[in-house]
Amino acid sequence: MEAAVNYDVVSIDEFDALCRYCYAPRVSSLQATNASWLFITVAKEHANKVTRQLGVKNGLVYLPGKGVSQWEDSDMGPPFRQRRFFYYMSGANFPGCAVTYDIGADNLTLWIPYTPPSLILWFGTTPTPEECLDKSDLDNVKYIADLPNYLNSTVGEVCSLYVLRAEQIPKSLSLGLLKPTIKIDTSSLMPAMAEARVVKSDYEVAMIRRANDISSAAHRAVCAGLRQYANECEAEAAFVRACVAENAHMQSYPIIAGAGPNAATLHYDANDQPIAGRQHLVLDAGAEWACYASDVTRTLPVGGRFTAEGRAVHDVVARMQDECIAMIAPGTGFRDMHLHAHRVATQGLLELGILRRGDGGDDNVDAATAEEVERVLESGVSSAFFPHGLGHHVGLEVHDVAGKQRLMSTVSPWTVGSGRKNKRDIVLREDLVYMIKSSATAGTTTTTTTTTTTTAALGRPLEPGMVVTVEPGIYFCREYIEAYYLNKPELARYIDTDVLDRYWGVGGVRIEDCILVTEDGYENLTTAPKGEEMLKIINGK
Amino acid sequence: MEAAVNYDVVSIDEFDALCRYCYAPRVSSLQATNASWLFITVAKEHANKVTRQLGVKNGLVYLPGKGVSQWEDSDMGPPFRQRRFFYYMSGANFPGCAVTYDIGADNLTLWIPYTPPSLILWFGTTPTPEECLDKSDLDNVKYIADLPNYLNSTVGEVCSLYVLRAEQIPKSLSLGLLKPTIKIDTSSLMPAMAEARVVKSDYEVAMIRRANDISSAAHRAVCAGLRQYANECEAEAAFVRACVAENAHMQSYPIIAGAGPNAATLHYDANDQPIAGRQHLVLDAGAEWACYASDVTRTLPVGGRFTAEGRAVHDVVARMQDECIAMIAPGTGFRDMHLHAHRVATQGLLELGILRRGDGGDDNVDAATAEEVERVLESGVSSAFFPHGLGHHVGLEVHDVAGKQRLMSTVSPWTVGSGRKNKRDIVLREDLVYMIKSSATAGTTTTTTTTTTTTAALGRPLEPGMVVTVEPGIYFCREYIEAYYLNKPELARYIDTDVLDRYWGVGGVRIEDCILVTEDGYENLTTAPKGEEMLKIINGK
Repeated sequence: MEAAVNYDVVSIDEFDALCRYCYAPRVSSLQATNASWLFITVAKEHANKVTRQLGVKNGLVYLPGKGVSQWEDSDMGPPFRQRRFFYYMSGANFPGCAVTYDIGADNLTLWIPYTPPSLILWFGTTPTPEECLDKSDLDNVKYIADLPNYLNSTVGEVCSLYVLRAEQIPKSLSLGLLKPTIKIDTSSLMPAMAEARVVKSDYEVAMIRRANDISSAAHRAVCAGLRQYANECEAEAAFVRACVAENAHMQSYPIIAGAGPNAATLHYDANDQPIAGRQHLVLDAGAEWACYASDVTRTLPVGGRFTAEGRAVHDVVARMQDECIAMIAPGTGFRDMHLHAHRVATQGLLELGILRRGDGGDDNVDAATAEEVERVLESGVSSAFFPHGLGHHVGLEVHDVAGKQRLMSTVSPWTVGSGRKNKRDIVLREDLVYMIKSSATAGTTTTTTTTTTTTAALGRPLEPGMVVTVEPGIYFCREYIEAYYLNKPELARYIDTDVLDRYWGVGGVRIEDCILVTEDGYENLTTAPKGEEMLKIINGK
Repeated sequence: MEAAVNYDVVSIDEFDALCRYCYAPRVSSLQATNASWLFITVAKEHANKVTRQLGVKNGLVYLPGKGVSQWEDSDMGPPFRQRRFFYYMSGANFPGCAVTYDIGADNLTLWIPYTPPSLILWFGTTPTPEECLDKSDLDNVKYIADLPNYLNSTVGEVCSLYVLRAEQIPKSLSLGLLKPTIKIDTSSLMPAMAEARVVKSDYEVAMIRRANDISSAAHRAVCAGLRQYANECEAEAAFVRACVAENAHMQSYPIIAGAGPNAATLHYDANDQPIAGRQHLVLDAGAEWACYASDVTRTLPVGGRFTAEGRAVHDVVARMQDECIAMIAPGTGFRDMHLHAHRVATQGLLELGILRRGDGGDDNVDAATAEEVERVLESGVSSAFFPHGLGHHVGLEVHDVAGKQRLMSTVSPWTVGSGRKNKRDIVLREDLVYMIKSSATAGTTTTTTTTTTTTAALGRPLEPGMVVTVEPGIYFCREYIEAYYLNKPELARYIDTDVLDRYWGVGGVRIEDCILVTEDGYENLTTAPKGEEMLKIINGK
């Protein structure tokens, strides 16, 4: 072993900040490896998929991986989280790498850092090129010190370079020498990669399934312990323990464990309040596995039994979810599902008497007619209680990329320019009304228009291999409902505040699963207990 | 309630990224509060301490708090972690705040964001100014929209502004109007605040004590489960569960749970390998409490019983720690403690036969004379096995600020310019030899020099109110020892490779506690089980 390592290159202040999270998931069923770095065995398949989207025959794709970072005025830093686009085409989950894909030569090369013995003492070893090749379908693995030469000679040869954005143009590129002859494309790669990621490969589905399995078991563990918990933090603790004990060291998103009114805060994550006296605990938590996400929500009755009000609201949300999941198949529009969820919610809330027909008469009747439901639905008032989207793609991000077209492109005047619309983001009453109106228009005109026009208006239809969440909810957030509904007479007339007053304590109910779209319908990847099974586990039966 | 909120100000893409971690530790014994934000009740005391260090009578201190951040190409972000200097003088642990301290007027004002009802639905509420005042010793709490006016009028009046660095000069300051008359100081505040933070206030000690209590109980939980664990991840899982279930949702640093050879990687954190057949599990893990750190390490015998080699090394490390802790008192030099640890290690390793006297003869004798120990110590060869510093300050950072002078300022030619030297960073053989030589020189000359000169050479002496770790270790990292010691004949002669070969399986041993320096000695804040007590818990006795 060579001992002539120059001590000066070892920057001491970086040591403590290098918080590598190169977790090695146990994937014995998929890959026989004990190593600390999981390699996607389909990096090459992914590279080819991206190339098809790019639609070019030559050029070099260059993606830098993430380095390490520190907090300001600290020698520590946030957990290492690999860049998702880089990971998709490399599978390398440790800092300081890069990947190149020579399209014409069909050559995918991973560039890795060299770890000197002094750093092994500090952080352990990183894999050698041979170890990387053994565990992946990469064509080549080389040390990153050789990358600048490769970049300059290859780009000089193939004459075009594709990067995600201008900041990722490699600094080692001798632009002065190359510039006249080459094209640097900073705009095509991102949409091509995003589109490639929308439909998942079998490998990706297997990873998302494993993430869901771990999360489902962890939800089960929380159910089993629920009656012993005095504080929300104990639910978080049991969940995270169950995940980490399966070597799932990262969560896909901050765990939400909110009891009572906290359940009405959609992204609550303080998880520090007493549970006693609360009706529900909303647990929205999903483990990450090999960089792939899961996203799972259950609403648990705190004492092991629902209150009458809690049961009623839980039943409505369960019906919203069941009926929307049953709609899933290739070609289904997510907006149709979203509006169906609102229709079920509106009917349910009318039947509970929380919503009323708004004509001023005594309308607290048990059954609402279809016309009554439609009329109240058109007011958009159900957005007071179900104020977010029905779901989103799940993949390397919990709110995964949408590709060319969103699942649900409302594009109402209220959301233009506000970014993606495929995740659980706020859906304003104005958005909902717009969706209902444009959907009705599309519905009456589609018989004569082409499918393309229809789907452009309604959002991207589901395709086999997509993984999406279906996560309806009904919430009783006093500040929100008072400010934006009860204070507006034209909306307040649809809400019976006397009845509503009995429901504030319900807080909120959300139920969420990850659904794989299949050739002939769907498969629910989430096996966390629901309904009666959930109640039995909570009550130790 | 005012409903006329402009929807346009609600940037939808920020919603999912706003991962607030405003955890509310249960501090019922210290503060009777159920709120989700803990306020330091000594922010004003801290502000006054900083002012004394600044040594000025007038001026405005301005510290911005942290905002929220997102990962690239993602709508999620890292956990929120408040800026420590800001927190020290404000106690506000939520995003979007700032704090000002008008030195002359002795007025400490916190500036907080306003949360509209639509954001309450999304993230829950933030405290009102009244709630903040109730739970803190701040003079004033105002909405941050009013900060620009305040800044301009106050800075115009007091004529000087203190910020941590140039980038923190507030953009809302109308420099064009103010510049001729005011001084903006970007260099004095950081050292003044760092120095103020070195000696902890009673409140800070209480927080560090609570963090240590939680960590100690969590170490106990891991001991109790150890014999059931098949994989390192189960130790991590049990530790993190125990912490989160006490509402300690953040760790002070990534948990290290390394078995066998992984225990020889100082900052190992993959925590994903099987335990079976390993001798030791090194568990280095400490919870954070109200932004204050703890830092605790125990080395557990995997089967509940040490091997002969494991026991022998553990005994040496325990002796290193016990004797160094016993030295702690006001005035003690950390370098003396560090060298003492090396002396104990050298003696222990000589007695085990791993080290030898290096004179070429048959020197595997049971007892090493004091002269023999000194001669081998002077070679610096013990740095092969104990290659890091003995400890560091603990506070708002796990490796806390050192203030004016480091605990151990080796300043050898090998570390000049390499940054702080008060944490568990690498201590090269050359550093150790330099420390031994300069210590010997200081020792022979101090009789005629002043104390100041001596301590400048030896490092800052301990003071009451400092909290430091004492964390000796002995490691058998093959790559490191081979590359930097066994491959060098002048060092290899001190090492008996035949004996050493029996010890590779030990991996490593580290024992670490957090120690408070008191007026008359020290108090060990860490109560995690050690020695026989630890073995009893592991073995369920």
